[in-house]
This record gives sequence, structure tokens and C-alpha cells, in this order.
Amino acid sequence: MRNRDEHASTALLTDQYELTMLAAALADGSAQRECVFEVFARRLPTGRRYGVVAGTGRLLDALADFRFTEPELDVVSRFLDPATVEWLSNYRFTGDIDGYPEGELYFPGSPILTVRGSFAESVLLETLILSIYNHDSAIASAAARMVSAASGRRMIEMGSRRTHEWAAPASSRAAYLAGFDATSNLQAVREFGVPGAGTSAHAFTLLHSGADGEHEAEAFRSQVAVQGVGTTLLVDTFDITRGVATAVEVAGPELGGVRIDSGDLGVLARQVRDQLDGLGATKTRIVVSGDLDEYAIAALRAEPVDVYGVGTSVVVGSGAPTAGMVYKLVEVDGIPVAKRSSHKESRGGAKSALRLARPTGTVVEEVIYPANGEAPVSEEFTARPLQVPMVRKGVPVDGLADLTQSRDLVARGLVSLPWEGLKLSAGEPAIPTTYVG
Amino acid sequence: MRNRDEHASTALLTDQYELTMLAAALADGSAQRECVFEVFARRLPTGRRYGVVAGTGRLLDALADFRFTEPELDVVSRFLDPATVEWLSNYRFTGDIDGYPEGELYFPGSPILTVRGSFAESVLLETLILSIYNHDSAIASAAARMVSAASGRRMIEMGSRRTHEWAAPASSRAAYLAGFDATSNLQAVREFGVPGAGTSAHAFTLLHSGADGEHEAEAFRSQVAVQGVGTTLLVDTFDITRGVATAVEVAGPELGGVRIDSGDLGVLARQVRDQLDGLGATKTRIVVSGDLDEYAIAALRAEPVDVYGVGTSVVVGSGAPTAGMVYKLVEVDGIPVAKRSSHKESRGGAKSALRLARPTGTVVEEVIYPANGEAPVSEEFTARPLQVPMVRKGVPVDGLADLTQSRDLVARGLVSLPWEGLKLSAGEPAIPTTYVG
Repeated sequence: MRNRDEHASTALLTDQYELTMLAAALADGSAQRECVFEVFARRLPTGRRYGVVAGTGRLLDALADFRFTEPELDVVSRFLDPATVEWLSNYRFTGDIDGYPEGELYFPGSPILTVRGSFAESVLLETLILSIYNHDSAIASAAARMVSAASGRRMIEMGSRRTHEWAAPASSRAAYLAGFDATSNLQAVREFGVPGAGTSAHAFTLLHSGADGEHEAEAFRSQVAVQGVGTTLLVDTFDITRGVATAVEVAGPELGGVRIDSGDLGVLARQVRDQLDGLGATKTRIVVSGDLDEYAIAALRAEPVDVYGVGTSVVVGSGAPTAGMVYKLVEVDGIPVAKRSSHKESRGGAKSALRLARPTGTVVEEVIYPANGEAPVSEEFTARPLQVPMVRKGVPVDGLADLTQSRDLVARGLVSLPWEGLKLSAGEPAIPTTYVG
Repeated sequence: MRNRDEHASTALLTDQYELTMLAAALADGSAQRECVFEVFARRLPTGRRYGVVAGTGRLLDALADFRFTEPELDVVSRFLDPATVEWLSNYRFTGDIDGYPEGELYFPGSPILTVRGSFAESVLLETLILSIYNHDSAIASAAARMVSAASGRRMIEMGSRRTHEWAAPASSRAAYLAGFDATSNLQAVREFGVPGAGTSAHAFTLLHSGADGEHEAEAFRSQVAVQGVGTTLLVDTFDITRGVATAVEVAGPELGGVRIDSGDLGVLARQVRDQLDGLGATKTRIVVSGDLDEYAIAALRAEPVDVYGVGTSVVVGSGAPTAGMVYKLVEVDGIPVAKRSSHKESRGGAKSALRLARPTGTVVEEVIYPANGEAPVSEEFTARPLQVPMVRKGVPVDGLADLTQSRDLVARGLVSLPWEGLKLSAGEPAIPTTYVG
């Protein structure tokens, strides 16, 4: 068994047509044309007011592992000519990538990533880039809404069991990026340094209950013995009121927390708070979980909830499990290109972007302009350039935002939105996108 | 760089609380109690009439790799006592697993998997089992609806870019299981033997168009030169009618296919069919793609479409990206257990299941009964037992269904449903679930 620190090749995490297009382009000589591909979302998921860019750190790691070694070459040689296979055996991306830093907000049309290189080396990255960005950004965008609904209360991501086993740690990372405080997923703890957290399951209480009745106290005693009184006890296996009484009886008033996983969480949180306070456990935190999404979290704002445990809704992007980003060829040998059939037109040419803000910091507009043109100037607003260099000649640049810095960027981005931008209800993007030049 | 054939440990693809519960259970002696855990879905996604079990093959592989080697032990030793860490270093599952074969249909309450072993060895598998089953079954269940809407036309899964990079090959596998014919994802080709397929992207046509105009013919010639006339040309980059004319001009009437990726696909398919036939390309297939889901596929039933390329909707489970299965402790030392708070009650005790059918083969009822009881008998209907042995003493049993056999099982399952069960509109489960005994 290998260990996960040795990186696996990511070269087959791609669509077959990227490789057959490569083969044709190598054969006809167009493969070496200098191209610009752009990643953007034509629109936000229905009703969403902003998106959060996520996946950059994971992409840069995956890019380093995008190499065709023997096992990958074996697969592609089934349908590719020998010259293409030979070319792939030496593949590494040698181009440049610029983009919105991880954690930056985005809006429809925002040029989130700009990939410059030969057609051959750039086209191969389409599927991998989009898989990572569409997944991670969908999760981060949903998670940010939950974080803002939670108004500073602690958030634990615990949705691993509701998503693909390797999507789970990526989801934990994206949720943490967006402002969650911790995750239940151990691979995310290991791979991304997300703080770990966990309480207990009903199975543990049931394990201690046999033919002779319900021995909740035994389960609680066992958990406290190993985890200490700072642990969180799950109190709703049988009867919540009795569960809370038993929990404080076993752990004392210094008990760290109780978790409620079912029922009307608002009503129960109030009852449990009163009960805990009456028992002198005034500092015992109330953790709620069970089908929470941003709306349920917001609905609990007036209740004495200390911690939200969020599962399904965050790992499935709360109704928008993919971000809908595309990877479009916008320039060939310096000439803008764009398809023009039907309603899916793209705008040709490499683009740059600025975000305009009032002196107060509140943003007002996303301005997109030709990368080779002059940046538009504004008398009224401050203009912040949005793209940063990420890869130069195939090598990640130094000093890119780490996960902590990206977390901070999300937090600052949310604060910069006009008030309507943070509303959970369906609406227009928080700021308009304007194309100039 | 390692290669993907060397398996990575799956032991950290789990929630922290599984391990803290283990630690407490090891300390208090309850860890060795014989337990039965059951995987089931309380309900189908809203309006769905059946589900398709998927993930079994992937689970059995992941189970073999569920070992704590040094890197995993390093992580868990941050929060576990030395005795628990030592126990984990020797961990392997030694219990039994029974379940619905991969590809079997399921309904609310169906005992999809039954895991028997000590609490210690069984509780650790919860997150991994659910991640795999909830993901793969969600995709297969959505894909089966698309397959049945397509009425025998060829289906290509091409949604890799819309889901996590490692969820993509698992999605391809689940879609293939459900009856799709091929995938664009090369990792799925490699890892699961799903047939590969692909056409071409707009970028390839745009690459051949420069400052001096649109050279679609050049792109088509290049693709045909490398792929042969059996290839599928993407004809909607500029103007579809011109694109079709150019395609047949370049490849001749033996052209394999044309793909339309935008516009009103029904109208366009008819126009393009007429045009192709007029050009003598009567056998050239029409491939359509672009935001297809089961409803759009069904709406094209009367149109001359030969192949559906399905992306986003299949990899996100067409509105139901997770299957909602749970892993519940139902028996401890032979005694049924169940939580009883609120509305989430479970039924205690290990269960078996039969599916009743009319002599015609049409199914009428899912009957669930205690595993240690007598199977109910029916005079009127044939009764088919649904669970099969999958793992004995930690070792997968020989002769489990392979992907081809599971594909066949899905196909037979769909045929066995009452007619309403195949309706795409929202409704009740196709057959009722009855608990007896």
C-alpha cells in the first residue's frame, strides 16, 4: 500500500477529447500556437449574489502531478498515435497562469483564471482545472452563505458521509476557507491542516444499552473518562430532557457541550439552555445538527445555539453542487477568438478585471477590460486589480495566499459587499459586471 | 510520483468521532460487543420512484485499503490514547457483510447493506461506506432515469469537469452501471474498464481560425486526418448549417457523426438530419449535448437524435447529489436497539428483504422482515431474496457481480417495475415497503 503523501499522477483525470484534439493539433502543426484560455462562470447559480473562488491551492498541487508515467501512457496509447504518446511522456506545463487569488469573491464573467501557453500544453488542463474549481468553488460559495448566516457562531463541517470519499476532504477545505471553524474529516486534518472536531453518534449510546434498558449514563461516563469533561455529549438518543440531566450528572457543570441532532432545534435549544443554566452548567455549549442549511442556520439566530454542525447541505453546495465555470479559448497567437453560434457566445480576448469600491470599502462594480488595454480609471471609486500571477513558466510563484490568508480574504470580501449582497433570498449578483474597451 | 495502482490507505476518509467512540469503547470494554449495522435510506429523493444500489465494487476495494499505516497513525495519535493507536495499527475488518448486489433497485427502508462484527471494527467503517454508497447510488439512480428516458439510444457520460476530480471516474462508473454506454473520463477507462468516447471542443475549431477568418474546414480536415472519417465533428462553432455542409465536404458521406452542443436541439436535430440525408450522409449519427437531463432527453424522443452526451446533470445526480443513506446500529449482542427521540426513529434488529413479483415479473412490494425470523410466504406472488453474502470474516466472497453483471441487473430491475415506476414525473416509490414480523 502506498501512502497518500506520494502524489498520484493526475494526468488521466481528464476527458479523452483533450488528447485526441492534441493529437490532431500536433499532426497539423497548430499545437504550438500560443493560446490564452480563460476560466469564468457565465452566471451564478440561480438567485446567488456572489461566488467564492476556491481550489487554487489544490490545483497547483494537481498541476505538479500532471505527468504521464508508464501506466497513464499505457491507457492513452490505446487510442493515440506514437508521436503523441511520445510527446505526452515529456509533458509538463511550461506556461503562465494568472487569476483571482483563492478566497476572492467572483461574479458573472469574472476572469477567474487565465492560462497562457501553447495550445498543446494548455488544452490538456481543461478538465482538471474545471473539476477542481467547479467543485471547490461550489462548496465554498455555499459555505460562505452559511457562515454569514451564523453571525460569528462556531461552525463544524461534518458532511463527509454525504459526498464522494475524496470529495469530502476537499469539501472540508473549501468550507474552512469560507469561514467554517473545523471539520469532522480526518483526511482534511491531515492533508490541509483544517482543525478537527467531533462529538459522538447515537450508536455509541445504543451500544451501552442492552436487554435490560437504556444506559445512557454509562455511555456518557465512558466518553467523559476518555475525552474529559470538555467533550460534547449527544443527548437526544432517547429523551432530551433526561439526556441533559444525565449528561450534567455524569460530567458536572463543567461539561463542554451537548449536541441536539433532531426535533425542532430552536425550541429544544431554548429548553436545553434553561435546563443547563438551572443545573449550573452555564458555560456548557449547545451544539445543533441535523439537516441544517443557510436558511435553517439563519432561523436559529435568535436561539441560544453555540455551534452549528453542518453536513449534507454544505458538501452538496446547498442546491448548487457545481459552480458552472467553463474554460474557453479566447486568444490564438494574440488574436481574439470566440464562438458565435446560439446563445452561448463568449467574449474573445484575454481579460483583466478591477473591482470598484466606495471610499467606505463597499464594492459597487466588477469591471472587465482587455488585458492588453489600459486599466479604466475612476474618479469616484477606488479600483482594486483582481488577478495575481500564480504560475510562471510552469512554476508556482512564491508567496501565494495560504489557506489562512484565503480565509481572511473571504471574510474581507463578505464585509465589502453591499448590504443586499448578504441576503440569503434569491436575487441578482451583488454588484454588476461591466465590460469596457 | 507514485502510480495509482498502488492503493492509498482509505483509513482517514472518515470522521474523527468514529475514532473517539472507538477509544471510549476500547477503554470501557464495550468495543468487543457483537454489533449489526444496517445501511438504508429512510426515503428516496423527493419524487423519485426507485433508487439504484451502486458503490459495492468500489467499497470492497476501499475496504482492503482501510489500514492504519504510519502516516495515518501519526494523525490519529494527536487525539487518541496509545492503546487505541496500537489497536488501530493492527486493524483490519474481520466481520461479515451482506447486502443488495450492486445494480439492484432499492426503496425506502431496503436493508442495502448489513455489517456484522465487533463494535470496534464496524463503527470505523461508517463514514467510508456511506461516502461511497451515497455518492455512487445518487449518480446511478439519476443515470438510470436518463437511460430509461433515452429508450435505447446511445448515452455518453461527459460530466467530469462538473464534479470533484476523483468523483468524476466514480460517476462515470455509476453511470455506466446504470446503462450509459461510454464515458469521456480516462481514469474511468483505466480504473473501471468503462468504454471511452469523445468528440471535439469548440477550442479546436477556434484554434484553426485566425485573423483572416473562420477556417472550420481546416479543423475538420485535421481531426479526420488523425481520427478517420468515423469521427464526430462538432458543427456549431459558427453556423450549424454551414458546419454540417463543411463536415460532409471534408469527411465525405461516411462521416461518423456530427455534434450539436447549443440551441434548440430538437429543431436543430431535424434540420441537420434533413441536411445530412440530402448530402447522402444517411448513416452519419447526430450527437446532441448541452445541459441535457432526463427531461430534456425524454423531450427529444421523437427527434432524430442518435447519441446523447450528458454532463452536469448526471454527475450531480440531477437534483439529488447524495442518496441520503444512513448507517445505523440495529443490534448489540443479538438484542435489537433503536433510538427513539423525535421523528427519526429507526427499526431495531437485523433485517432481511424479499421483493414480491407477479408471475409476469412485475414487482409489487418490498417486504422487510427480521433476519432471524422466517421469510414470509406468498401464495399469489413470487418472492425473490434480495441480500447476498459479500464479505465473510473480512474477505470478499467469490463470484460477486462484476460491472457487466451489475449493468444487466439494473436493466432487468427497470423492466420489472410497474409502468408508473418509470415515469419521470414526481411520485411515490414504485412499490410500497412493508415490514412484517
